[in-house]
Amino acid sequence: MSQRVSTNPPTGFRDFFGDEALERQKILEKIAHTYEGFGFSPLETPALERLEILQGSGGGENEKLIFKVMKRGEKLAESLRDAKTEEDIADFGMRFDMTVPLSRVVSEYKGEISFPFKAYHLGPVWRAERAQKGRFREFIQADADIIGSAHWSADAEVIQAGVMAVAATGASGFELRINHRALLRSLLRAEGVADERANDFLIVLDKKDKLPLPDLKTELESLTQKSLSSQFMKLLEGRLELESIQLPEGECVAQELSRLIKHLEGLNLPLQAIRFDPSLARGLGYYTGSIFELRHPEAGYSFGGGGRYDELIGRFSKESLPAVGFSIGFDRLALLLSGEAQKSGPKKRWKERALFVPVFSEETRAAVSALAQSLRVQGWLVDLYPDDGKLKTQFKFADQRAYRWCLIAGEDEIKQNQFKIKDMKLNTEESLGEEALRKKLAEILKSDR
Amino acid sequence: MSQRVSTNPPTGFRDFFGDEALERQKILEKIAHTYEGFGFSPLETPALERLEILQGSGGGENEKLIFKVMKRGEKLAESLRDAKTEEDIADFGMRFDMTVPLSRVVSEYKGEISFPFKAYHLGPVWRAERAQKGRFREFIQADADIIGSAHWSADAEVIQAGVMAVAATGASGFELRINHRALLRSLLRAEGVADERANDFLIVLDKKDKLPLPDLKTELESLTQKSLSSQFMKLLEGRLELESIQLPEGECVAQELSRLIKHLEGLNLPLQAIRFDPSLARGLGYYTGSIFELRHPEAGYSFGGGGRYDELIGRFSKESLPAVGFSIGFDRLALLLSGEAQKSGPKKRWKERALFVPVFSEETRAAVSALAQSLRVQGWLVDLYPDDGKLKTQFKFADQRAYRWCLIAGEDEIKQNQFKIKDMKLNTEESLGEEALRKKLAEILKSDR
Repeated sequence: MSQRVSTNPPTGFRDFFGDEALERQKILEKIAHTYEGFGFSPLETPALERLEILQGSGGGENEKLIFKVMKRGEKLAESLRDAKTEEDIADFGMRFDMTVPLSRVVSEYKGEISFPFKAYHLGPVWRAERAQKGRFREFIQADADIIGSAHWSADAEVIQAGVMAVAATGASGFELRINHRALLRSLLRAEGVADERANDFLIVLDKKDKLPLPDLKTELESLTQKSLSSQFMKLLEGRLELESIQLPEGECVAQELSRLIKHLEGLNLPLQAIRFDPSLARGLGYYTGSIFELRHPEAGYSFGGGGRYDELIGRFSKESLPAVGFSIGFDRLALLLSGEAQKSGPKKRWKERALFVPVFSEETRAAVSALAQSLRVQGWLVDLYPDDGKLKTQFKFADQRAYRWCLIAGEDEIKQNQFKIKDMKLNTEESLGEEALRKKLAEILKSDR
Repeated sequence: MSQRVSTNPPTGFRDFFGDEALERQKILEKIAHTYEGFGFSPLETPALERLEILQGSGGGENEKLIFKVMKRGEKLAESLRDAKTEEDIADFGMRFDMTVPLSRVVSEYKGEISFPFKAYHLGPVWRAERAQKGRFREFIQADADIIGSAHWSADAEVIQAGVMAVAATGASGFELRINHRALLRSLLRAEGVADERANDFLIVLDKKDKLPLPDLKTELESLTQKSLSSQFMKLLEGRLELESIQLPEGECVAQELSRLIKHLEGLNLPLQAIRFDPSLARGLGYYTGSIFELRHPEAGYSFGGGGRYDELIGRFSKESLPAVGFSIGFDRLALLLSGEAQKSGPKKRWKERALFVPVFSEETRAAVSALAQSLRVQGWLVDLYPDDGKLKTQFKFADQRAYRWCLIAGEDEIKQNQFKIKDMKLNTEESLGEEALRKKLAEILKSDR
């Protein structure tokens, strides 16, 4: 390759390395462990699905954003000869969410799965969005779903698990907004909005927090061609209470939703507020029951959410199965956390359980390698300098990685069984025999636990 | 979707759920934590790369196996109108290994990275292999690489990290085979095999363990058109020792390799053997120095391996950087481990730190939810039944998930502050007040640690 190619990632894609990547890794683990603590077991599905699974899945707008994978070999050659449309040339697509693959899996392995099935699903999804700042085409979702229970307690459990998983990462200050698809549909019908036209109406309604009330009213009324009801005006003003909703079909739904909210309130979840939001719509076409979203005062977008989708599995399978899920927008959460970490100052964040061992000479490398390995078993991160280099260069390497401790084990130290341990944070040093050294290192670990 | 679509994953792709997925998750975590213990920090790169990055990367055969992603929107329409070849219609491809993306990342962020750069890279790669049993088109690699050190200790460190990561998963019985590209090249040249024809020769050599020696000799000699040297015959017989190699260019390389092997032997790694294997070739075109492979007596394929690739980064960047890496074939390892688990009998594997809480009535749900949450914080997996159901159904749910403990907290128990804790494994039961219960549960956790 004599001509140089561009080495940045494709537009809308990102690379992560070093401390930022480590931070993301830790956040992912916390989410996974929280879900596991609730009895959700992991689900792993392919990045690629057959196009016919992804298309017509009720994924709404997302279906238009599928990255399509070309057929291969003889099949591709044939398609290129005979056909000229996109659909003929591609056979697979990259998953745009975790819910469609989960529904496929449940349909496929129904006989092996014991229901209610509690699964968490953590990994990247891909959407061919128009490239723009802050919009990514590959991002990680962290979902928890319960399949096979139509009971409201399943809704409560995925919400609880999702909220606790977010809290486990150290993020706080969230508000949970809840609504119900059937309630929303009834409210719209009461305004004369037919189900087919609901989407246009919801797109305008979505501007609620940005548009002045009179403008919003005008825009909505231009769609319905009549005045909004007083009940709907209350909704726009944020004064519509769940208990006061008067709708022919809505009452029972309102009661159910009210019970769910009361239960969640009783759990003392680490949330700023739990709020019924009758204007909450959520984009995806496949929701049928409760819908919910996690908001943060510092951002104009949601950090997670989900809802009940009792009909999606029926699209893949003879019998339908009730289902509900919560999805955490991992990348937004990681961004929020790194923003908060930055606000608390550009202080050096020492790695407290990390020990650096400079290599003084090739003769000592074998001995310090063995020592390093025995300390790793204890729980230390032990990094040996993987090159020959001046001591100054080696200490710079350790400093750049913010390793708090350094172990000096040169030829003399090894011969005399007297090692130096340096605290890089406090800039102190201690000289110890091997046994005392091991004891000291064990104590440091213990005090950091 | 009235017509039913097939819900199995695309050919060569797999779904994992339940205990199998959990097992895989735990293995992945052990590998990641081992790499972190050596001071490797994670690397996250996109699933998709520009095609020109993947093509001409020296990835050998793998370049022919790229899943290609179609252009989108206007660009696609244009390509479909004007052009008819594969290359015009696709712009991205799915990564076929972790080494090419790593090399791109190092070239792109050279100014921000502090070298030697130690990174681990864990995730799926995709290869459009012909579908056949045991061949997968999506599989997980777990790589550790050191960039920026040409020193043999970097080779030693990635090997050590890889071997320790595999050992951390509980797998054992591996043999490490080591060779050196330059040595192999010299050996072939001494037989009159030109570098351009080396590949054909290596393909035959690869049959060494399967073909009778005379047949192998005949096949190789039909390629070279002359008799094999006595040195090469020793190689075929497995009697060629590193110290005895006599080659014009090979001596220095042999010394270096010998030092690496001695150092590894001194580390007492959990391996059956460390063996110099002058016939080891490794498929990928980009290796330049040491090459190595992890073999297991129970399988005819490698579980990991890697080598030094000092010239790959130079293909993306003005200056080259020395690099070496070890890659674990995660799926093969997981398969080996699950096979070993099965051999030890189809015994029920109880989840020792898991507590199931049946829900006796809707009235108690709030109270047991709160209790469950407080136990999760302690470190318990606590699963509540997420539906209403007969007690028998609920206990079946717990039994199928192999939860060892059950907590009985019905209306009477809550009222009288007297709970029952059932040991499902030993089939015993104990009645305890809340305080005693918490103490008992804390003790169980402690004894399991």
